[in-house]
Amino acid sequence: MTHILDKLDAEALYRTLLQKITVALPQTASLQLAGIRSGGAWIAERMARDLHLPHPPGFIDVSFYRDDYAQKGLHAAVQPTSIPFDVDKATILLIDDVLYTGRTTRAAINELFDYGRPDKIMLAALIDRGGRELPVSADFVSLSVFVPQDQTLVLHRTDENLFDMTVEHA
Amino acid sequence: MTHILDKLDAEALYRTLLQKITVALPQTASLQLAGIRSGGAWIAERMARDLHLPHPPGFIDVSFYRDDYAQKGLHAAVQPTSIPFDVDKATILLIDDVLYTGRTTRAAINELFDYGRPDKIMLAALIDRGGRELPVSADFVSLSVFVPQDQTLVLHRTDENLFDMTVEHA
Repeated sequence: MTHILDKLDAEALYRTLLQKITVALPQTASLQLAGIRSGGAWIAERMARDLHLPHPPGFIDVSFYRDDYAQKGLHAAVQPTSIPFDVDKATILLIDDVLYTGRTTRAAINELFDYGRPDKIMLAALIDRGGRELPVSADFVSLSVFVPQDQTLVLHRTDENLFDMTVEHA
Repeated sequence: MTHILDKLDAEALYRTLLQKITVALPQTASLQLAGIRSGGAWIAERMARDLHLPHPPGFIDVSFYRDDYAQKGLHAAVQPTSIPFDVDKATILLIDDVLYTGRTTRAAINELFDYGRPDKIMLAALIDRGGRELPVSADFVSLSVFVPQDQTLVLHRTDENLFDMTVEHA
């Protein structure tokens, strides 16, 4: 069970996700993107360009909102949340690299609601790795694959702004 | 589109839901039920008996937690939330009668987290009527059916403690 994956073609996963979203949401001009730092923020940045959105995406850092904040404490690399659009009445596509327990999604949604009451929040992720601990689901996912608990999927960004995903074993 | 449904066999939907949960979760003794008032609370009450759970279910009133509280105000019939178990580390099956926008689910989850940090929250509903506004999904659902926006599904409980569901037109 431990050697299903060693590396994932994150570029292909990104292009698949982009295609699914383009097909399902042909009128994207009023769509707001919000990427969860760090992987989801990179994806949102690139997707805003590829969808030719007229406005920049938001970035969410959920460190302060995670329900395990007390255990994990604060990572040195925390970057601020920045939401450059009016959340009230917005249709938002929340973007994460990997969907796992759903706790990060819940935290990000709660953070968005601190800024206003959106009409709709959808969720997109490159990978759904199962293991849900909250009844959260993604509207758009490129790959659903079971990943053992002792493995972590990590999205990287190369110098050429391309995506790369590695599987790290604990 | 307006006459797809007039009445739903809520008893059959309840038995289907019970069966799905029994099959998927054979070891239910440590499971905690939490029903969203009013319909979900009735279902949780009955299900706790039918699953022979050793402890009573919790009841959640989301009126104060709904994100449209400011618009809707407080209903006269609000009943207190009562969680007779330790939410911390619990595996909870949250129960609602109808899953719709997902806002009630979000409110109920946030209310549960005010009591502790559960290991897992799953969601069960008799009906998923589509129209999601948040990326929420049910783990157990008896029937998925599109219901037009101007219709409301209302669960009733007869004098014999049986379920009945009506479709009300706005």
